[in-house]
Parts: sequence; structure tokens; C-alpha cells
Amino acid sequence: MSPRIVIGVMGPGTVCDRERALAHELGQKIAAAGWVLLTGGRAAGVMAAATAGAKSMGGLTIGVLPTATPRNLAEGVDIAIVTDLGEGRNNVNVLSAQVVIACGMGLGTASEVALALKQGRPVILLAATAITRSFFEQFASEDLYFADEVKSVIALTQTLLQNPINRSE
Amino acid sequence: MSPRIVIGVMGPGTVCDRERALAHELGQKIAAAGWVLLTGGRAAGVMAAATAGAKSMGGLTIGVLPTATPRNLAEGVDIAIVTDLGEGRNNVNVLSAQVVIACGMGLGTASEVALALKQGRPVILLAATAITRSFFEQFASEDLYFADEVKSVIALTQTLLQNPINRSE
Amino acid sequence: MSPRIVIGVMGPGTVCDRERALAHELGQKIAAAGWVLLTGGRAAGVMAAATAGAKSMGGLTIGVLPTATPRNLAEGVDIAIVTDLGEGRNNVNVLSAQVVIACGMGLGTASEVALALKQGRPVILLAATAITRSFFEQFASEDLYFADEVKSVIALTQTLLQNPINRSE
Amino acid sequence: MSPRIVIGVMGPGTVCDRERALAHELGQKIAAAGWVLLTGGRAAGVMAAATAGAKSMGGLTIGVLPTATPRNLAEGVDIAIVTDLGEGRNNVNVLSAQVVIACGMGLGTASEVALALKQGRPVILLAATAITRSFFEQFASEDLYFADEVKSVIALTQTLLQNPINRSE
Repeated sequence: MSPRIVIGVMGPGTVCDRERALAHELGQKIAAAGWVLLTGGRAAGVMAAATAGAKSMGGLTIGVLPTATPRNLAEGVDIAIVTDLGEGRNNVNVLSAQVVIACGMGLGTASEVALALKQGRPVILLAATAITRSFFEQFASEDLYFADEVKSVIALTQTLLQNPINRSE
Repeated sequence: MSPRIVIGVMGPGTVCDRERALAHELGQKIAAAGWVLLTGGRAAGVMAAATAGAKSMGGLTIGVLPTATPRNLAEGVDIAIVTDLGEGRNNVNVLSAQVVIACGMGLGTASEVALALKQGRPVILLAATAITRSFFEQFASEDLYFADEVKSVIALTQTLLQNPINRSE
Repeated sequence: MSPRIVIGVMGPGTVCDRERALAHELGQKIAAAGWVLLTGGRAAGVMAAATAGAKSMGGLTIGVLPTATPRNLAEGVDIAIVTDLGEGRNNVNVLSAQVVIACGMGLGTASEVALALKQGRPVILLAATAITRSFFEQFASEDLYFADEVKSVIALTQTLLQNPINRSE
Repeated sequence: MSPRIVIGVMGPGTVCDRERALAHELGQKIAAAGWVLLTGGRAAGVMAAATAGAKSMGGLTIGVLPTATPRNLAEGVDIAIVTDLGEGRNNVNVLSAQVVIACGMGLGTASEVALALKQGRPVILLAATAITRSFFEQFASEDLYFADEVKSVIALTQTLLQNPINRSE
């Protein structure tokens, strides 16, 4: 009776059509794999698209909100974690995920990738630009992975889940 | 497609047999009502007993941990929220619950009851001592309730859920 | 070159005249003793009165704010620590103080006293009511003290500072 | 009687000699300008060097610690803010600073720069590499500045302080 596997999908509140489509597909495939989806919970961008994708496959969805009440919650979030931590909730997002997937890149997402790597959580950057790759590669983290399509993200996640992450303990 | 109803059960890590039995029964009846159980997630006291109770009825259980990794997690927690907030996670516990139920009273629980009332979350004190009742009654909160048995807690919770809490917004 | 001694004064944002006078005197005597005053920083109640008292004696004052910007800061705060933690900042208040003094009692203050005692910080309740005394005494903490006047609080603080608090480490 | 100006210096716990020298000089010049220095407070890298620099000029220094007790505090920190937030304290660092200066770049520092820019705090990257510049420039923040020597950082900070930052409010 182990806890369920939680996969975090992080990404900006403002996205282009391609990122939204990728986030939706991520949500679908995470749910199809039987994993729980965790996002930042707001009704915007990657959070909303990934959540909608997971719900379309009957998945379980968690939204970790920055606010003190569950307002502006993405449609389809099953469990709202209400933190009142503002951007400080970004650290809760990454610590609660066994694997962190970044789809698109904004300032909040950048903070989440950095915090995840700092604390030994595996991070997969989906369709990252060359600049983003170079920036995070300079820290020589063994927990950083790249993928160009959702299919590869899911396969990589399956591999990463074989190796429980308790390095930071 | 609203989020699921989350009911928080707060209580000490060290408890007597009666409190443990009450917490277990609370977990059972919360699950039977179709609500999600949220606790502080550690493998001790009220957290462990309520979680075990909810799982025995097939309920969904959340554990909001103070640590940076999911160690010392109560058996039966489905979703571990890993905060690394220490005692600061007590505020996340109460903000994430639509109704907060206190079973037993320790210093951590006292902080949770106070934080919940401060922020307009309904709180039910189960089997509280006269001193505890008097202490919290002095703040004249309209969100404070008392009950002497689990059955009453559940009935009261059902009533409270009719009136969504967004006073603090 | 040790860090300066930081004394926390906690109390409600809404107070009666007597509590305001006690908080002002606490601030004065903390500054006169050469200690740094730490409060919740808002321009209200005990926070404002203690800060004004400390400044009137040329003391150094810290305000740990719940908000994301330094708005509504008490007049006379020298250093604003801006947390965006909401009520979660209460834990930062007590952890940052070598001794925690409660003047008056509200729900926020109750959470701070409980969090301080939980984590081994010495707490002095000034002019506490019988109910408040009884409530906190039930937890049998060796870190809990009572005083009826500011003079005694200061003497007690001086004694407590002889014994560095690292029990919780 | 306004609060004192607080300038944050962020940087890795492990640094090369040049970064250590720059951090020390930053601390000196911040103190010489009459500003309060805020760092992450640990006895390592940029935090320790900037604090030592500020103290050598008689400045006032704040250390915002990730831990629950003031252990491993940098020599020369006057005021230890003890958060028990782990890496979550990075957000407190940047919110509490009127200007955030990054000296060197690690994962923690990257999270701080991202969080600062996300929330409208001006950030100066000192001696940033081309990759780091390109990465943060892609977010088109009007709050991002670059400088190649400490002298320029101080001049820029003086200019930025003319324009109070309350955009995020």
C-alpha cells in the first residue's frame, strides 16, 4: 500500500498553441500510465491544459495553489492544495513530484526547474530551446533530462521511476 | 466537475487509545461520506489512525508532510504533499480543508485550530476538554463548533458543507 | 562577533489600551537592554506599539510581514522582512526570536505561542488570563513562563538568555 | 522614519576566488552606501564573503536561513532570520530586498533571479556569462540589468532606488 506516483507538470500561465497541445498530451499520457498529475493548479496555460488532458483520460489531478482560497482553480482539478505561499509554493510543487516535467519556460517554471535540480528531483525539459538547455546544462546535474516529444517523456519517466529518488535525504 | 471535498483531521502524534479510536472512526466515516481525508501525513498518532480508517473504507487520503522527502509517511496515504515547511505546513493543512476537525489537542493541533479560525475555516473540536473549549471560545469565532462523538462531527460537517466558506476571500 | 539577540513580541492587531501600553513598554525595555525587537510588522495593535516603544529608545526593529510587498508596515520598523507567507509567517516570527513574549491573546498570537513551544523556544505570557494560562499549561512545556508586569518579563528574559536554546536541534 | 534600504546579494555556496572577491567587495560597498545587506545567511560562498565585506565596513547584515535553528550561520551576520523553509526561503530573500544582486550562478541563485523577476524586483547580474544573460533575457523583463564590475552595480542600484518598486502590488 505505497503512496501513488505523482508526476509534476510545470509550465507558464501564458503559452502558445503548441505548448498547450503538448501539455494536454502530457496530462493524457500521465493519466493513462496510472500516475497522479500535479500542477500549479491555476486556470491558465500549461496548468489548465495538462489538467484537462489528465481528466479526459479519467486521471486524478492535484493543483497546488499560491493563494489562500481555492479561487481561479483550473477546471478538472480534483484536489486543491491551498498554500497561501505565493511563488513559494513552487518548491512544494517540485518536492511533491517524483518526476518534474517542464513544458514551456517562464520565470516561474525556471524557478521550479532550478529548485527541483537543487534538491535532487529528476527534471525532464520537453522541447526546450537551445538557450534553456545550455543554461541548465551548466550546472552539471545528473538529474536533468531532455525530450522532444511527449512519448519520449513518458518512456523516460518510466525509467526514472525505477530508481527511487532519495539522494537528498 | 468541481474539486473533491477535502476534510482535514488534525491531532497529535502521540495519543491515548480513545483518541486513536476516534481518529480511526473519523477516517472511516469521512471516506464513507465520499470525502477526501487530509492529515499531516506522518506515521504517528491521529494522522496514522485517521488515514488507516479512511483506507479501510476505500477512501482517498492526502498527507501534507513537514519534511523535504516523503519519509515517515503514514501507511495508507495515497498522495504525499512534500512541503519542507516544517511546522509551517500546518497552515497548508487547514487552508486546504473545507472543514477542519481536531481530535485530541497538542501544540501542533492548537496552532492548526488557531490558524484555521483566524482564516475563516470551520473547525470542529471533537471531545475537547473544558479548558480547550474555554480557550478557543474566548475569540468568539462563528466558525468554531464542538462535538462529543464522531456521528455528530459528520452530521455537522454535512451541514457546514452547504455553506461554502469564502469569507476570508 | 555573534549575531544580535532578537526578542519577539507577539500580540493581536486589535488591542485594548492596557495591552497597547504594555507592548509599548516592552518595546522600550527591549531596546534599552540592547536587544533587537522582532514583531509581525503590521501597522496595528501590539506590533505597532512595541515597535514605537523600541524606536523611542533608539532600538533596532524588525517586522516580519505576511504580504508580498512592504505595505501596511508599522511606523518605526527598520528592517522589513517580506515573506508572502500569509499566516505561515508566524512560524518565522517565533523561530527567529531567542525569547518569544506574548502580550494579549488573539488567534494569530495563539498560533505563535503554540508553534514556539512546539519547537523549543521559550515563551513568556504577559498578563495572561487564567483561561489562557490553563490552556497552555496542559502541554507541560518546560519553556512556558508567565509574568504580570514588563519588569518581570525583562528579568526573566535576561535569565533565559543565559541558557542558549538548542534543544530542538 | 522609513525602513532602511535592504540590498540582497545572492550567490552560490561554492564559488571561485574571483566570485568570492566580488562578493566581498559588494558587501563593502553596500555597507559604505549605508544600505543593509541581506543574504541567505549560511557560512559558505557568496553569503559568507558578502557578509564579511559588509562587516569590515561596519554595515548591518541580515541572514535569512533555510534551517529551523541558527546553525551554520555566516560569521558577521547581525540578524538571523530563521525560516525553516528550506529552499522556500529563497522567495523571502528576494521579496525582502529592494534590489537583488546575483554574484555567480548556481541552482539556488537561478531560482532567486527567476523569483525576483517574476515578482517585479530589480535584479542585477554581476559578471554573468553569455549563457546566463541569454537565458534570462528571453523573458523580456524590464527589471533585469547586467554589470561587469561592482562599481557599476552600486551606481545602478542607486539609480534603481530612485524608482520605488511597487509594480507587483
